[in-house]
Amino acid sequence: MLRASFNEEELFYFKIACSKEFMTEEGMKQAYENLKKNKINALVVIGGEGSFRGVTEFSKRFDIKIVGLPGTIDNDIYGTDVTIGFDTALNTVVEAVDKICDTASSHDQMFFVEVMGRDAGFLTLRAGISCGAEAILIPEVESDINKFVDYLENGYRRKKTSNIILVAEGEKEGGAFEVVKKLEPYLQGYDVRVSVLGHIQRGGAPSAYDRYIATKMAVEAVFALINNHSGIMIGIVNDKIVHVPIEKAIKLHKTIDIEEVKIIDIMNV
Amino acid sequence: MLRASFNEEELFYFKIACSKEFMTEEGMKQAYENLKKNKINALVVIGGEGSFRGVTEFSKRFDIKIVGLPGTIDNDIYGTDVTIGFDTALNTVVEAVDKICDTASSHDQMFFVEVMGRDAGFLTLRAGISCGAEAILIPEVESDINKFVDYLENGYRRKKTSNIILVAEGEKEGGAFEVVKKLEPYLQGYDVRVSVLGHIQRGGAPSAYDRYIATKMAVEAVFALINNHSGIMIGIVNDKIVHVPIEKAIKLHKTIDIEEVKIIDIMNV
Amino acid sequence: MLRASFNEEELFYFKIACSKEFMTEEGMKQAYENLKKNKINALVVIGGEGSFRGVTEFSKRFDIKIVGLPGTIDNDIYGTDVTIGFDTALNTVVEAVDKICDTASSHDQMFFVEVMGRDAGFLTLRAGISCGAEAILIPEVESDINKFVDYLENGYRRKKTSNIILVAEGEKEGGAFEVVKKLEPYLQGYDVRVSVLGHIQRGGAPSAYDRYIATKMAVEAVFALINNHSGIMIGIVNDKIVHVPIEKAIKLHKTIDIEEVKIIDIMNV
Amino acid sequence: MLRASFNEEELFYFKIACSKEFMTEEGMKQAYENLKKNKINALVVIGGEGSFRGVTEFSKRFDIKIVGLPGTIDNDIYGTDVTIGFDTALNTVVEAVDKICDTASSHDQMFFVEVMGRDAGFLTLRAGISCGAEAILIPEVESDINKFVDYLENGYRRKKTSNIILVAEGEKEGGAFEVVKKLEPYLQGYDVRVSVLGHIQRGGAPSAYDRYIATKMAVEAVFALINNHSGIMIGIVNDKIVHVPIEKAIKLHKTIDIEEVKIIDIMNV
Repeated sequence: MLRASFNEEELFYFKIACSKEFMTEEGMKQAYENLKKNKINALVVIGGEGSFRGVTEFSKRFDIKIVGLPGTIDNDIYGTDVTIGFDTALNTVVEAVDKICDTASSHDQMFFVEVMGRDAGFLTLRAGISCGAEAILIPEVESDINKFVDYLENGYRRKKTSNIILVAEGEKEGGAFEVVKKLEPYLQGYDVRVSVLGHIQRGGAPSAYDRYIATKMAVEAVFALINNHSGIMIGIVNDKIVHVPIEKAIKLHKTIDIEEVKIIDIMNV
Repeated sequence: MLRASFNEEELFYFKIACSKEFMTEEGMKQAYENLKKNKINALVVIGGEGSFRGVTEFSKRFDIKIVGLPGTIDNDIYGTDVTIGFDTALNTVVEAVDKICDTASSHDQMFFVEVMGRDAGFLTLRAGISCGAEAILIPEVESDINKFVDYLENGYRRKKTSNIILVAEGEKEGGAFEVVKKLEPYLQGYDVRVSVLGHIQRGGAPSAYDRYIATKMAVEAVFALINNHSGIMIGIVNDKIVHVPIEKAIKLHKTIDIEEVKIIDIMNV
Repeated sequence: MLRASFNEEELFYFKIACSKEFMTEEGMKQAYENLKKNKINALVVIGGEGSFRGVTEFSKRFDIKIVGLPGTIDNDIYGTDVTIGFDTALNTVVEAVDKICDTASSHDQMFFVEVMGRDAGFLTLRAGISCGAEAILIPEVESDINKFVDYLENGYRRKKTSNIILVAEGEKEGGAFEVVKKLEPYLQGYDVRVSVLGHIQRGGAPSAYDRYIATKMAVEAVFALINNHSGIMIGIVNDKIVHVPIEKAIKLHKTIDIEEVKIIDIMNV
Repeated sequence: MLRASFNEEELFYFKIACSKEFMTEEGMKQAYENLKKNKINALVVIGGEGSFRGVTEFSKRFDIKIVGLPGTIDNDIYGTDVTIGFDTALNTVVEAVDKICDTASSHDQMFFVEVMGRDAGFLTLRAGISCGAEAILIPEVESDINKFVDYLENGYRRKKTSNIILVAEGEKEGGAFEVVKKLEPYLQGYDVRVSVLGHIQRGGAPSAYDRYIATKMAVEAVFALINNHSGIMIGIVNDKIVHVPIEKAIKLHKTIDIEEVKIIDIMNV
């Protein structure tokens, strides 16, 4: 049925490298000619703000339909609850923290673990809940150093089995090393370690959930193009597929669920 | 705050083994006395229909509040989109199928892989989408042998890179071995193999998503008990926490999303 | 240095599919012509007895040097302590048994787990030691049903935490299902399950050790060819690289280390 | 049989925390009294130089037999080819580098990855061979900056698919960040990243090989004690179990296999 409604040559998946050439009028013209030569009249773009912005400019100039799929481990794209890559990165973080916990608990150490996410704390927050972290520091929530000091005085001393604090790389107080430096006066007597998880978070075989949503979004993208939609991003909101104007996905800012932040505190009462 | 509102001794997590004794009046009475002795007046039960039924009978007889959390790899509990354990099992299935694909593609074989799920096809369906399976056979959808034969004649011959058919253990035509036996006349010329994934699907370290929903549901369960709720199951519907009367969760039947079944067909056009 | 000593075009890696054509005089002739056309005068063959036999026949007829690398998950090749693939499969078995143990220990079940290995018990034996299996049944050791019955009466009843019996697929008494059937009279009162691990053992990303020995053997193979060796297999014996006449690797039979079998018994005293 | 030859109470496994108290005469005396109270007359100690030194001092003062098992991810203990933990850490490094390669190859980046090992390069060397690293920097080999610059000019430009350089944490030139700083003038035009793998290398479920050698060594340790040996470490040399005077294991220095270092160069011709 899908095959019946459009010519196989008209549409297929295509990868645009984040090339500097594509950002010039000249480069875009060349890209358009390449597409026409290959009888491609639509693009499905997997990426974030940057890719969406580039391809939107492109579609304004040339007769190419575009649909965006949200793809980033940071999960910071407006218009969708989840992004392709987020769940895989989350599992990588959780597995890494599990391994760190083996050391932390056998040597009675306190670990500050830095999690990726550029200027967003989604990955850190979700990982913090999943790992049972003692505390998280994310850019979206005003860090209350007194609260943390209070935690050190009361919480840590009550001897939790794992002693993990997650710090988002975009945290305003700085990354994990900077945070530890600032907290130094309050960390006397603790055996403190820092681990920056780094680029392992950006790779690996995709998790089942990421494959599932990627497939679902891709199928929707193809149907959207068949139905002559363009300039939209496919998202998932409250577990349902939605269409979002791609301009909104570029401009608007996704906010963190403050109820989830509270879970971290509740779990560490 | 959580600590302020109830006495620590009043409430803690508790595991009821699926014991035969608990199914008798005598056994229930003994269980109640043990709980009272330990100053426990509420139970949070993680399980499926059987556990919910048992604990409901118990709470009818004795002054014990109960809240259920849906826990099964089968994801077949009414009143919740997801169950604790489902995502972990799904990742196990996907990783296993990835490994089988290595053999299937290098030896050009066709694999019928049997996936758990008792009489439900949720795990098979979701795994089928995630793995890009050629076809799935699940009890909820009338198996059309002609359609499958048609697929063999047309689809398989077009040389897909992976040649995986997932069969739910509860499939009405039988498990993977029985299905292959019935299809034998149509499988001449194919190098057909059967793999029953089995009990590896019931264990392993929990995935990030399972830890996340288990934590969220557990927090909600405690608040529900604090607010004097009882006889409910905590569920997640459209990505939001919900309360479901536990009797409904026991009696009603969860249905498969037929749109998702179509994705398998679309991906194999 | 390596580059200096031979012409890049003379030698590169090559994969021979297990094709029926290659087994005919006609097919071999065609293969030789293809090699000559591509200026290939030597083959490095990764495989087992079958591949070695085929390529040996080929090298007798044509002017092509051959070196074999032992590649099989079964580890049953004479002249080498380890084969490429064995360690990866072993890790897959151990991870699978770990998952099965989660179920076995929480439901107090006894599992008979069938492990691959054609007519050899190397994988089962090594996995048995690594997993702390209660018992193993392998074709190289006369199964003493009385000993096993004795174990059931004494060992199992002493409540080990894991209750795993590994059965090699080539076991003379039959696979796991057959063994359980034969033992039925003695298994009354136990909750017995069977799990056939199957083809997941043949795939997956290679373990560190397999990558290490594959690299080491490959380097040695290239140097052997540079030094005009042919008709040999590269092996590892007592952790040192060795050359073995490929005819010996084909004809002779590798024996199991009986001391390792005893470890299973010792661990289950 | 094992059970027949010694009293169960006489011997069991025991974990000594690396406590400061144990380093004093007073602390040792207390430890001895605790052992006697529990009818323990022998210790099997898993660890490295520090643990071996401590327990040797202990056994000189008190009537307690000791046997050491080599346990460290660094594999830097004299008298054994392998240590318990090395293979697990190696697999963790290889999996992490695989994930980093996903990013490195899709963004055409050069990664300097810092691997643990205190002042030893065993883990870095073995990981380098297993991952197909472009180059490794380890403390045991004089770093030749000219050679590396030459590699950058010739090797890297020939566009390898992965662009990974492993740096041992104990490298004399400094860790990965310091090395990159020193090489800065030669790295112009490359997109260079640094990843410090950190404490994930110290945890995780043990690999099959580590479970296997730990079991084998443990069995030998028990037999050694039964046969009245003391003051030895169990090792594995050329794949065979050996006894090593524990004083030697403490004092002597294990050297790196220079042939393995050459493999890195050969693979990057």
